[in-house]
Amino acid sequence: MSAPVAEGVEAANPVERFDRTPATSVRQHPERASYDRAVVHAILDESLFCQVGFAVDGKPFVIPCIHARIGSTLYLHGGLASRLMQVVASGAEICVSATIVDGLVLARSWFAHSFNYRSVVVFGTGRIVIDLVEKARALRAVVEHVAPGRSREARPPSPKEMAATAVVAIEITSGSAKVRRGLPRDADSDYELPVWAGELPLQLTPLPPVSDPRMPAGLDLPDSVRDYRRPGQA
Amino acid sequence: MSAPVAEGVEAANPVERFDRTPATSVRQHPERASYDRAVVHAILDESLFCQVGFAVDGKPFVIPCIHARIGSTLYLHGGLASRLMQVVASGAEICVSATIVDGLVLARSWFAHSFNYRSVVVFGTGRIVIDLVEKARALRAVVEHVAPGRSREARPPSPKEMAATAVVAIEITSGSAKVRRGLPRDADSDYELPVWAGELPLQLTPLPPVSDPRMPAGLDLPDSVRDYRRPGQA
Repeated sequence: MSAPVAEGVEAANPVERFDRTPATSVRQHPERASYDRAVVHAILDESLFCQVGFAVDGKPFVIPCIHARIGSTLYLHGGLASRLMQVVASGAEICVSATIVDGLVLARSWFAHSFNYRSVVVFGTGRIVIDLVEKARALRAVVEHVAPGRSREARPPSPKEMAATAVVAIEITSGSAKVRRGLPRDADSDYELPVWAGELPLQLTPLPPVSDPRMPAGLDLPDSVRDYRRPGQA
Repeated sequence: MSAPVAEGVEAANPVERFDRTPATSVRQHPERASYDRAVVHAILDESLFCQVGFAVDGKPFVIPCIHARIGSTLYLHGGLASRLMQVVASGAEICVSATIVDGLVLARSWFAHSFNYRSVVVFGTGRIVIDLVEKARALRAVVEHVAPGRSREARPPSPKEMAATAVVAIEITSGSAKVRRGLPRDADSDYELPVWAGELPLQLTPLPPVSDPRMPAGLDLPDSVRDYRRPGQA
């Protein structure tokens, strides 16, 4: 997917790394940081939902939200009257965070306990999406983000439903990822302790689907449900 | 666990519901909202981690963080130099959000798609925890929050480790929960469509533990790992 050509002084070519800024520089465990756009994008794509942060008169808000990414644009949707939609549409600065926990890191000491995780924090400013072609494309991306293939199985929105849904776009201007993997890193003197240590991997896993009893008889489970997994998941 | 006696004009008795404020009133799908402290607390306890939001000079930040709750106090820990610890310790207003996704709601139309989820958004102000008894209690609560029983299996912090860890407390002053359960709520005319509809439940599930090869031989899997589940999970 090609990035839109940036206007103004920014280079028009795809930029593969985010510039480090005071806001995005990872200070705690900088060895876990990545400023690689591909790493940031992959974590955003695998994360089922995100947390959207904004400030109103200096008061912070964090709201869980479903997102979809196209290029370096994040799309969110919601009710027209929601605070989140209104603030994002106003062009205020937005912070979006998404986290995938891959496991518990169980060390010999409380102190060395950790998580294995992949997280991103990105910043950008929003705009409301008015163009109907972009809006439909964004809503398709949201459905596909949640359940790949589902947009072809279910009924697309009517003009009335389109009008009842607000879509906002956030251009990601800066951001970073943070990734921890592997076993505990205990203090040298702790390796003799008789304490079980290791990783307990965790994964968001589908359980058996629950069919709506009001369906017409004889419908098979669709591909989007039978083979459900997050992008990047084995 | 008894709540501390509030000073000033607030009632000293335990308050079972949060007052609704403009910031905490759920506007989108108000039928999903709960202002019941027990509901909010149970979701915080089951959530493995949270997202902490704050504003610096009007710029929003959202940082994933491990938390533990004791009564109506949330404890977070981190490096002394982290922005998060410094901002929370400054007494600034903090917003904490936590979300558990219970399933995908796959409807006949794109428009009626949803998640089943339990989420909370709480607000409060922070302080740094200096008292060593409170600090040790908070760190134990954090370990227990992540893996119940683990604090008895692993080595507690040394004075040096205690000094290297910052702990902050956020008194939850307001908040709300939002819960969706059940099947899709499709438009009446869509129930005839030949589209599979229902719920795909999702759960954060442990995979087989990975033992650290540097352990002394002969250690069994501890209870905290063998029986791992989140509080409230079946």
